[in-house]
Amino acid sequence: MDLISRVKARETRALARALTHVENGDEVFLAALDGEYASLPHPERIGITGPPGSGKSTLTSTLITALRKQAKRVGVVAVDPSSPFSGGALLGDRLRMTEHTLDDDVFVRSMASRGRFGGLAIGSEDACDVLALGGFDPLIVETVGVGQSEVDIARLADTTVVVLTPSAGDSVQALKAGIMEIADVVVINKADRDGAERLEEDIKEGLELRPHPPEGEPFWQPPVVRTIATQNAGAEELLTAISSHRGFLTGNGLLASVRKRRLESRLSDLAGAGLLAALKTGDRAKPAFEAVRGEVLAGKLSPRAAVKALLNQLKL
Amino acid sequence: MDLISRVKARETRALARALTHVENGDEVFLAALDGEYASLPHPERIGITGPPGSGKSTLTSTLITALRKQAKRVGVVAVDPSSPFSGGALLGDRLRMTEHTLDDDVFVRSMASRGRFGGLAIGSEDACDVLALGGFDPLIVETVGVGQSEVDIARLADTTVVVLTPSAGDSVQALKAGIMEIADVVVINKADRDGAERLEEDIKEGLELRPHPPEGEPFWQPPVVRTIATQNAGAEELLTAISSHRGFLTGNGLLASVRKRRLESRLSDLAGAGLLAALKTGDRAKPAFEAVRGEVLAGKLSPRAAVKALLNQLKL
Repeated sequence: MDLISRVKARETRALARALTHVENGDEVFLAALDGEYASLPHPERIGITGPPGSGKSTLTSTLITALRKQAKRVGVVAVDPSSPFSGGALLGDRLRMTEHTLDDDVFVRSMASRGRFGGLAIGSEDACDVLALGGFDPLIVETVGVGQSEVDIARLADTTVVVLTPSAGDSVQALKAGIMEIADVVVINKADRDGAERLEEDIKEGLELRPHPPEGEPFWQPPVVRTIATQNAGAEELLTAISSHRGFLTGNGLLASVRKRRLESRLSDLAGAGLLAALKTGDRAKPAFEAVRGEVLAGKLSPRAAVKALLNQLKL
Repeated sequence: MDLISRVKARETRALARALTHVENGDEVFLAALDGEYASLPHPERIGITGPPGSGKSTLTSTLITALRKQAKRVGVVAVDPSSPFSGGALLGDRLRMTEHTLDDDVFVRSMASRGRFGGLAIGSEDACDVLALGGFDPLIVETVGVGQSEVDIARLADTTVVVLTPSAGDSVQALKAGIMEIADVVVINKADRDGAERLEEDIKEGLELRPHPPEGEPFWQPPVVRTIATQNAGAEELLTAISSHRGFLTGNGLLASVRKRRLESRLSDLAGAGLLAALKTGDRAKPAFEAVRGEVLAGKLSPRAAVKALLNQLKL
């Protein structure tokens, strides 16, 4: 039986192998996966993001427990922007060490960033497709909250959960910097700590400042949920909040537009990667690029002038 | 007098305006800047990177003080990968609040990430060019250590300084994850804290594991420097270590290859951005992209198949 069929048959080892192919960008496997595109299921996608140390992994674990009580099969993609400081597979490693290790209906995989130009987003989408094919629903996409990745995760998920903790300075920064714009649900984790009250006030104030949609269009006010993930407290409430947001999306016919936006981003990422690859392998693009590259390295042309010349020559 | 001439004349306000143009990707200004390409000075570039909280900004400030004693004019580009959690201009804001605010021979600018696809790297290179034109030498490129950015900074600088602190867990992670591969100089900041000894051992062990170049080729063993930036301690030693590395580069004729690699990255970033832009505006590329985009949104084509069709049609 081929790998795709074995993924469909929900073989755990096949899933692991398929995801390794995804991570390696294996062209043969990706072509086979692409062959399933039209018939792929579209599981619910929950995004979890927040700053380092906010307890995202523990929260994800309690969320899995709550979802398992509903007999859901849960797939997790832990997206790690591959910081040399945090180590590539940190999120996934943490999750894998939890109580769900032996549960065949839970599959956790971490994806590390490879290279640049949308590589992480492309790989994460492919990983979601593999888990969808394996019958997992919902999918949880967890990302460590650094850099561009929170914004990207908002594109990967239907519902984005932002996790904050009551600790010095965080709240102000989070609010100031527009994290509220991507949040569909806000979690105050470690809510037994000092400052939870203050943080909640700050968050609610920040949420008030969100731009409202035009009059008459559906408007979602993100709920604020308090959790203590290490004690499994608040997971049910969080699930309820996530379900409410999903109800809002489906009830207002917005799920289609969320998916459309995602599809556009994915196409754009793949197009960017494809065009860059063409510069290295294309029959026309490669020699044209090599020529201007030579001029640049010889100091005869600036990189900007070179790109202009390249685009002219390729008549794009 | 036009803006470029005023930058060359080292007018502080002109520099600020020029860098705003860079940040906004102003085409007219960038074309004018490109006109200066052949005659741009090539100042020394020092990269400073490390995890959040390692005291990079304070260290940069003490480094500026030490460089000012040598009558150097110091330009700083603080590259922030625009985390919603850290706030866009955090690094630069911190630096601007220091003692160097009123010194005309120190110019600090933070660059936040705009969009994807190499935007931050492209903008930082342009900012370095503006500061070079303004006669600053050396340039310090500081980046908060998250995600892909440390790897990118290693490309922006001639000498990359990695800043670590003695705190639980960090050392092991940093070593494991290959941060050592980009370090030319390693700083143990907050060296008066417990664990500095242990961290230094770990770092040296990690440095031992770096791949050696082929027999006979020049080999650089990164020095480990202890600093207490808040007390201005160790800045001179750090400068000496940076100078040693520069001596290694120039003495072995390696500065040219460092710059060549940087030029290649810059060309590649600009080419990627240019190709993607062509999909939105190009005479041939735009209609071709619109066509496959329509097919994808109608569910008739997968994004991957669409990109394949696009590349075929554009005969790249």
